[in-house]
Amino acid sequence: MALSRADCEAMDRDDPLAPKRAAFLLPEGQIYLDGNSLGVLPRGVEERVVDLIRNQWGKDLIVSWNKHGWIDLPQKVGNRIARLVGAEPGSVISADSTSINLFKLVAAALALNPGRGTILSDTGNFPTDLYMASGVAGMMAKGVRVTTVAPEDVASAIDADTALVMLTHVDYRTGRMHDMRAITALAHQHGALMLWDLAHSAGAMPLDLAGCDTDFAVGCSYKYLNGGPGAPAFLYVAPRHQDSAISPLSGWLGHAAPFAFDLDYRPAEGIGRFICGTPNLLSLVALDAALDAFDGVDLDALRRKSEQLGDLFIRLVDQECSGFGLASARQAAARGSQVSLRHPEGYAIMQALIARGVVGDFRSPDVLRFGFTPLYLGFADVFDAVAHLKAVMAAGEWQRAEFRTRAKVT
Amino acid sequence: MALSRADCEAMDRDDPLAPKRAAFLLPEGQIYLDGNSLGVLPRGVEERVVDLIRNQWGKDLIVSWNKHGWIDLPQKVGNRIARLVGAEPGSVISADSTSINLFKLVAAALALNPGRGTILSDTGNFPTDLYMASGVAGMMAKGVRVTTVAPEDVASAIDADTALVMLTHVDYRTGRMHDMRAITALAHQHGALMLWDLAHSAGAMPLDLAGCDTDFAVGCSYKYLNGGPGAPAFLYVAPRHQDSAISPLSGWLGHAAPFAFDLDYRPAEGIGRFICGTPNLLSLVALDAALDAFDGVDLDALRRKSEQLGDLFIRLVDQECSGFGLASARQAAARGSQVSLRHPEGYAIMQALIARGVVGDFRSPDVLRFGFTPLYLGFADVFDAVAHLKAVMAAGEWQRAEFRTRAKVT
Repeated sequence: MALSRADCEAMDRDDPLAPKRAAFLLPEGQIYLDGNSLGVLPRGVEERVVDLIRNQWGKDLIVSWNKHGWIDLPQKVGNRIARLVGAEPGSVISADSTSINLFKLVAAALALNPGRGTILSDTGNFPTDLYMASGVAGMMAKGVRVTTVAPEDVASAIDADTALVMLTHVDYRTGRMHDMRAITALAHQHGALMLWDLAHSAGAMPLDLAGCDTDFAVGCSYKYLNGGPGAPAFLYVAPRHQDSAISPLSGWLGHAAPFAFDLDYRPAEGIGRFICGTPNLLSLVALDAALDAFDGVDLDALRRKSEQLGDLFIRLVDQECSGFGLASARQAAARGSQVSLRHPEGYAIMQALIARGVVGDFRSPDVLRFGFTPLYLGFADVFDAVAHLKAVMAAGEWQRAEFRTRAKVT
Repeated sequence: MALSRADCEAMDRDDPLAPKRAAFLLPEGQIYLDGNSLGVLPRGVEERVVDLIRNQWGKDLIVSWNKHGWIDLPQKVGNRIARLVGAEPGSVISADSTSINLFKLVAAALALNPGRGTILSDTGNFPTDLYMASGVAGMMAKGVRVTTVAPEDVASAIDADTALVMLTHVDYRTGRMHDMRAITALAHQHGALMLWDLAHSAGAMPLDLAGCDTDFAVGCSYKYLNGGPGAPAFLYVAPRHQDSAISPLSGWLGHAAPFAFDLDYRPAEGIGRFICGTPNLLSLVALDAALDAFDGVDLDALRRKSEQLGDLFIRLVDQECSGFGLASARQAAARGSQVSLRHPEGYAIMQALIARGVVGDFRSPDVLRFGFTPLYLGFADVFDAVAHLKAVMAAGEWQRAEFRTRAKVT
């Protein structure tokens, strides 16, 4: 039986997370399905940033480092993220970009696991992870190289030469999800260390870094965590490694006594050593405020809704549209919080959708990405999005010249 | 003849930069002499950041990368800084922290000048520069080490083994200023490359990176550039090196075609390759707005006033106070835009001054730092600050227990 909009509205009425929608300032006239690229603006962020600018920076100035706890914010925000990724308290900081944090941890991991020559990753990894790992490898004294295999071949490619397995948990294009527990265990069996990039998982599902015995992780906070454009990223180091792992990005705020201004570097005890330069307060405060939206959220319920939203989208596309391939797993358990379709005219179709206010994005060569952010999207939104997709295809709207011109950032 | 407050008021009336004070929201009831640590809040910053949050992030979301030029902002802001540091257009970007940028450029420099074993710096350098350079050296295939000598011995220590001379132009504690032109020329004579850290110079004086034939530079934008706490730093690469220098922090936004998502890194042409991860938009927009205060400012006039403010302070301290040593050069030409005093009870004296609203800072073991930011400080401010210092000393105010307890950040 065909699903109707009324069916979707009924699902919204039954949704225990529906009230969370009010915690966000959703863009008017849009169905925003790109929260996996840039999350929407949570309520309260603007006020917190204005307070930081006007009162803390503007009036208290330099004493704010103590008076307003600026100096502790990377760890305070890190601890809030720790709950969302299943990490031990004191094992996460928020700082720098995902790329920079990856560099710190790849270098630290290689130093902890010497005598092996391979950083193993997969071709579904976000390219910057591969670039940064190659940057580390290019600097290392010993010959270490980055090897990539197809995602499904990772498990069989781990061997005695693997120093580090470095994977993004959820594929940015297809949403394919690796089995964190199984691959981490396999890496350890072979004597390798494990680093997960949680860019497309943190804030979209429960994670269990500690329970999976993960060594290292990084993640992005401007996607499902809604920290704002270019928000500080995060990094995780398992407690067992915190006093032996060393970041070559050995900046003064990771020093054991930064305000002693010693000429020699001595890393801080614990996770604090992975802080490098001065934290970016405007963005860090915005992220701290954004995380309020996760207060009280049951992450299992979040995941359940995420799966339902994706399942509904797939079912409705099957029902209403033709000509699309499914780039994501049909089984919800095997994908993250997005569904990607394939179509040879994907770019133009996505532009036509955006013109109608349905905002997803496009990834070369033919992938249309639709992110389903369970905190602020409803089931009727999904219905409406597919109705627009159907209309774009039925009327051949995507064939208009204006939709075929590529923008600088796509 | 003793200088009076009326004399200082007359100097303010004659000051061509006096109207610029109105471009800042100065903290009430304070004489803020710590702009060399954290610059004050310029007018217009809050409005720009609110617009970014509310309208760009909040409403336009992901399309802002094109619509609002987010993607070009690191280079756009870099070009505004380029004018202030005497750099060629297209040779500066704003990104990451000073520490991170230093890492990029030290690594790039060593790769450009192989076969030499020394990064030469001085003991007056800000410690993070030494830590980061050591971080690079520790990763390198060949044996490269960081050697520090006393500031006055740098010139004689440059030799055929020096790969890179890495100095901070103005000493963070004493304000001592290196001769950029002479040392750069000397480095080149010996076949070394030259990297300047402009943390305590940019925005306080005219600089001539291009004219001095500098190879590389980094700098901080939350001091004299007033970009806000933790604002994105900047980096400079001379045009002649831009297509050969490679950053090991090879993130996706430094790729020649970031949105092609290639698996292999291919650096962008020109300065853009030194961008790494996603720029932090909140902070970058705040910095862009802050730089408006420099529009139309004659940097020679700025430097002249900076020298006069420092000279006045020294003269008034000589006239009104005793027991202080001068840690800075008495000759204005040999110091940056700060004057540092020495006193064995410096910490408590500074706390007593701060309690009176005269905000400088303290650097171990005995340095009281007073920053003179010519855009927003006047000559009567300097008079009043010294009057407070005199009162603190005369009444023994600094001996109160509350002023002797060290804060976390000092």
